[in-house]
Amino acid sequence: MRRLRMGMIGGGPEAFIGPVHRFAAEMDREIELVAGVFSSDAGRSAAAGESYRIDPARAYPSLDAMFAGESAREDGIDFVSIVTPNHNHLPSARAALVAGLPVITDKPLTATLAEAQELAGVVAAAGLPFGVTYTYSGYPLAREARARIAAGEIGTIRKVVVEYPQGWLAGEAVGKQAEWRVDPAKAGLGGCIGDIGVHAFQLAEFVTGLRVTEMLADLGAVVPGRLLDDDCSILLRFNNGARGVLLASQIEVGELNGLRIRAYGDKGGIVWKQEVPNTLTIHSLDGRTQIVHAGGSQLGPDAASRTRTPAGHPEGYLEAFANLYRDFAALVRGEAAPLLPGIADGVRGMTFIDTAVSASRAKAGWVKLEG
Amino acid sequence: MRRLRMGMIGGGPEAFIGPVHRFAAEMDREIELVAGVFSSDAGRSAAAGESYRIDPARAYPSLDAMFAGESAREDGIDFVSIVTPNHNHLPSARAALVAGLPVITDKPLTATLAEAQELAGVVAAAGLPFGVTYTYSGYPLAREARARIAAGEIGTIRKVVVEYPQGWLAGEAVGKQAEWRVDPAKAGLGGCIGDIGVHAFQLAEFVTGLRVTEMLADLGAVVPGRLLDDDCSILLRFNNGARGVLLASQIEVGELNGLRIRAYGDKGGIVWKQEVPNTLTIHSLDGRTQIVHAGGSQLGPDAASRTRTPAGHPEGYLEAFANLYRDFAALVRGEAAPLLPGIADGVRGMTFIDTAVSASRAKAGWVKLEG
Amino acid sequence: MRRLRMGMIGGGPEAFIGPVHRFAAEMDREIELVAGVFSSDAGRSAAAGESYRIDPARAYPSLDAMFAGESAREDGIDFVSIVTPNHNHLPSARAALVAGLPVITDKPLTATLAEAQELAGVVAAAGLPFGVTYTYSGYPLAREARARIAAGEIGTIRKVVVEYPQGWLAGEAVGKQAEWRVDPAKAGLGGCIGDIGVHAFQLAEFVTGLRVTEMLADLGAVVPGRLLDDDCSILLRFNNGARGVLLASQIEVGELNGLRIRAYGDKGGIVWKQEVPNTLTIHSLDGRTQIVHAGGSQLGPDAASRTRTPAGHPEGYLEAFANLYRDFAALVRGEAAPLLPGIADGVRGMTFIDTAVSASRAKAGWVKLEG
Amino acid sequence: MRRLRMGMIGGGPEAFIGPVHRFAAEMDREIELVAGVFSSDAGRSAAAGESYRIDPARAYPSLDAMFAGESAREDGIDFVSIVTPNHNHLPSARAALVAGLPVITDKPLTATLAEAQELAGVVAAAGLPFGVTYTYSGYPLAREARARIAAGEIGTIRKVVVEYPQGWLAGEAVGKQAEWRVDPAKAGLGGCIGDIGVHAFQLAEFVTGLRVTEMLADLGAVVPGRLLDDDCSILLRFNNGARGVLLASQIEVGELNGLRIRAYGDKGGIVWKQEVPNTLTIHSLDGRTQIVHAGGSQLGPDAASRTRTPAGHPEGYLEAFANLYRDFAALVRGEAAPLLPGIADGVRGMTFIDTAVSASRAKAGWVKLEG
Repeated sequence: MRRLRMGMIGGGPEAFIGPVHRFAAEMDREIELVAGVFSSDAGRSAAAGESYRIDPARAYPSLDAMFAGESAREDGIDFVSIVTPNHNHLPSARAALVAGLPVITDKPLTATLAEAQELAGVVAAAGLPFGVTYTYSGYPLAREARARIAAGEIGTIRKVVVEYPQGWLAGEAVGKQAEWRVDPAKAGLGGCIGDIGVHAFQLAEFVTGLRVTEMLADLGAVVPGRLLDDDCSILLRFNNGARGVLLASQIEVGELNGLRIRAYGDKGGIVWKQEVPNTLTIHSLDGRTQIVHAGGSQLGPDAASRTRTPAGHPEGYLEAFANLYRDFAALVRGEAAPLLPGIADGVRGMTFIDTAVSASRAKAGWVKLEG
Repeated sequence: MRRLRMGMIGGGPEAFIGPVHRFAAEMDREIELVAGVFSSDAGRSAAAGESYRIDPARAYPSLDAMFAGESAREDGIDFVSIVTPNHNHLPSARAALVAGLPVITDKPLTATLAEAQELAGVVAAAGLPFGVTYTYSGYPLAREARARIAAGEIGTIRKVVVEYPQGWLAGEAVGKQAEWRVDPAKAGLGGCIGDIGVHAFQLAEFVTGLRVTEMLADLGAVVPGRLLDDDCSILLRFNNGARGVLLASQIEVGELNGLRIRAYGDKGGIVWKQEVPNTLTIHSLDGRTQIVHAGGSQLGPDAASRTRTPAGHPEGYLEAFANLYRDFAALVRGEAAPLLPGIADGVRGMTFIDTAVSASRAKAGWVKLEG
Repeated sequence: MRRLRMGMIGGGPEAFIGPVHRFAAEMDREIELVAGVFSSDAGRSAAAGESYRIDPARAYPSLDAMFAGESAREDGIDFVSIVTPNHNHLPSARAALVAGLPVITDKPLTATLAEAQELAGVVAAAGLPFGVTYTYSGYPLAREARARIAAGEIGTIRKVVVEYPQGWLAGEAVGKQAEWRVDPAKAGLGGCIGDIGVHAFQLAEFVTGLRVTEMLADLGAVVPGRLLDDDCSILLRFNNGARGVLLASQIEVGELNGLRIRAYGDKGGIVWKQEVPNTLTIHSLDGRTQIVHAGGSQLGPDAASRTRTPAGHPEGYLEAFANLYRDFAALVRGEAAPLLPGIADGVRGMTFIDTAVSASRAKAGWVKLEG
Repeated sequence: MRRLRMGMIGGGPEAFIGPVHRFAAEMDREIELVAGVFSSDAGRSAAAGESYRIDPARAYPSLDAMFAGESAREDGIDFVSIVTPNHNHLPSARAALVAGLPVITDKPLTATLAEAQELAGVVAAAGLPFGVTYTYSGYPLAREARARIAAGEIGTIRKVVVEYPQGWLAGEAVGKQAEWRVDPAKAGLGGCIGDIGVHAFQLAEFVTGLRVTEMLADLGAVVPGRLLDDDCSILLRFNNGARGVLLASQIEVGELNGLRIRAYGDKGGIVWKQEVPNTLTIHSLDGRTQIVHAGGSQLGPDAASRTRTPAGHPEGYLEAFANLYRDFAALVRGEAAPLLPGIADGVRGMTFIDTAVSASRAKAGWVKLEG
């Protein structure tokens, strides 16, 4: 069974997430990066191609060039990975799908909800595999949490708290990574909400198996001069009546990447934190607290199949990301990958972002979350 | 300098907080429990007096009996401590103040805001020392956090997150401690909000030195059949424009007494957690993280004067509580005790509870917090 | 049942452990400090008495004066507490016992093994209650660990690691607390080994229920000019063949009071750390890890009877110390207190110190630990 | 600059460390696995080759076949990676070096010290790049600790404690991974000492920059029927006079892979733990404690150049391992890689193992560690 061949769109010099997708895609040797349009600038695309050590002929200056070049080869790419800023997701994905290539894209799905809905139509018409890299749902213990909740281990969920504190945008937005995120033209309508709030949202629905039906969003632009939100507080209601809170911020100085989720049911509670990803804490109503270790003997199949080393050998962000690519490779090979976020999850995330931004601007109080 | 003599009101058999006040009051040997009306039932009051090992003659069946008995003695009580359920705070405090005795009372100040305002009038008229035991502001490192923020160490505060998760009322409310807290007749209009939410509120204002000016409260009664709120999510605005979130819950299974506060400014961030009370984490905008230890060399005078052992010798809840009594003893002796919560803080807490409950019931959205 | 009346020997101005004994003795209101010889200097004894707020007439200048003065009172002391530097333990204890008073003393029992053996004879002859304050065996979860091991929860113990790192003597020994500890005339033959190593040793035997039978001691005086050991590494064998390691140091910069014990059997492992004293970690051979909380529902009676607050309300060093005094009060009242260290434990500790110091000096390799 | 081509020796079906080397080698895209002798059984070698998705023609049944086959290709391997059990390290490495191929091998270097010395001669004669994968020295924060100590941040080191607790061999040794490790014919003369003790030893010298000059080893075979040591306690002296302790065990139930090192100087202390690898704790003599984050702004170049993601995105074991391969790739390309362990470090590790085993068997007490 040969390795799948990946073409990357985006991920040029100074990119953060491009190399991460490369690490992740190749980790399990199911996929190999062979081509890319790493930048719309030909020179920068070539330079990036060199840094990735791919065949210089396959570092293309444009999507058209890549699709033409690759389709002419016997060993052409099998799919594309999109790692551009948000506003390029839709055109890139559409072009690839129209060219007959499966697509995996970074989140959020697009820059706007309208774009997302348009893309959903394209995906449906194409009938090709499509994945969205909500990274954190690739962590083994996030999957273990989901499986245990689905199995009823904490009973009926009553309360969910999901938080995503960061501090790196507390000062001036300096550097390529920061700059596009605070620019509405590139990031879309959401700042913090689209960059990390949507991760928290997706994780909450992923882990609990519930759907948010109502929300009350309070988004703020705290740093002077900022045009997009950098601090988000959102109250939630889920489809089973459970109450919830979603907090995300990029101005909490000293917070690194503190995504964490706590879910409480009528029989127990479960806690997982991205920064210490290899333990899961489970509380029971009778006062017992259990620690479950990644790589350990207490894992169910969803988690056990997505760890690579024994307990005590820390796996982290890149390995979680790789689990999504492993899922996606299965999908491309025609197998099932039920835990991989797809187009519906991508649209749902955009609905969430759009609803949060518009409800917050309108000071609308509680609103329904459609979809 | 002799020990001050304390009379307790409440704290009878099966009480939790009565013994805690006794531990706290006596810890530093500035105060001695000598008398009490531990129950309105004479037999139970006598039994409690025996358990506290006080002179049986001084375990009284009523407030009147205590005030009469004690005023007739040369070594009569110097003040009273009120540890009853909330609905008895006002009558107990009024009677004591009228009898010329300083008062320290457990929180919340009273069962209703109207009672609190009435009590404020009584206190003002009496002109006697009055304290409220917001326990957590007695912790040395909470005081250290306050002092450092006041000194500008984290700059202008932009965001405050204060959480108080508990899980002990997730099941049926069984036992004396649980029962009165879920009974509107005894607890007043607030459940979780009055029991622990108000602690979180007070800590947030105490540590940051800011005042909440607006809030949006979402209180719920989650456990079937519960009449008072047991889960609270509140969005905040402070008087300097800072954004905030206050979460309190008593149905989060496995959470013990997880009060914690995080404040973020434009120069740094500060984090303190009641369950690991002897460390304070301070982040700087330049990426440095510092850990400050209770009992260590890095403390300012507010904290250093309120620790009893060297760093590494854990102090906890009782010691924090004792710090409030040490403050109160100073007050009774005519000294200053600027960090001890007083009647204004008590009224403020009731205003918070009242506003939260009424705004949540009315689904009022953002409302002003007066006072 | 009246409070027992305690006379203190030692604990004068600048003392650390005297006030700690006072806190501990009085916490549960079973005991009251009423008299003392706080210093051999009459003025300093009086000053200390004032700081403790006792009757000035009962702050005595000498043991003889105290015994005479107290025996002449109807409400004279019931026992003495000895908190002097080590070299005064024997004469103080002997005098008290001869005067018919039960004794509780700080550890180590005496300055030398010979003194300890002499004291054992005095105690035996007196037939009076006698306790030694190995503080850490007063922690509820240390007792829980002991009970669970005794019940077979981790199977047959194979390995014990007990560590006691501190850093406060890494620099010059400045201040009253430091100075006597590094002075052979006051501390006796052991430095670190007598100050904290013996705590680790006692905790290891207390928790495991095993006895050390052989040891190999490597003691060093690291700080230039130091006359007594300040860093100790000791290999152990227990009476069931289990292997062990005991590490204690006072020159490990940044370590506060890091006593911790880990015991491993053929069915599980158990870990407890003094600096986070309110959780106990229990591992099973099948890969499960459980956290037990002080104050929680999973405790056995030895621990449950020695916690004062619900889970999540941190108790610490003073509360642990108070548990020993509660045990001792029971003993004085004629009840059983099987977990309180007594004269045999005190002699055993001195045997350990003496063996460690002499074997290390002689570079004797493995030696037997008698007793 | 093309990717280097790697041939693997060992790493067949059920192997743990083979896939780890593959992950690590390929992570930074400097290296590609293209060939291997994954097993001495041709069928098993082919099966492994398939699992690695390499060209079936390049999954060889023997070293000779691989060297012949690869040297005949234009795109033949550039070096070999040896991941067999210990007894095959010497013959594999010798054959590769004789065939003109650089070698990177798992630790310990060989099964015996004599073999190690023999291999050193072969390496010297070959004059080819040679690396040993002491994994833990690849962690960024272990390198940061080394750099800070070298810069004098904690002053002159006085004490080093390095521990490596595991529990996975506490029961019967079941499965391929366990079985060879407890078999003297495959593992060599050391059990736990060779499997993990040598890691602890190497890390201690790596981080501190000191050399162990004397040691006292106490090795035990605890599990009934075990032929090799499974529990090691070793006292150390370093070349600057510093005292040290090295503990390693594989029978401590519940311990996962708890390698940790603490070094204390006359100005500070530094603590790093493999299981929480992304923080480094630094203590100063004045009482300050600082936390340094992987990926953060406080890192020096050795660490900063070996992290792939921003602070808060956990990197772990595979990334640390990859850092060694990145070093090795540099070496093969003719660049410097001063932090990569080489043949001298390999021999030193074997000297340590040999000395520990023989001194422990002979109950020799303190012995010199040569080399």
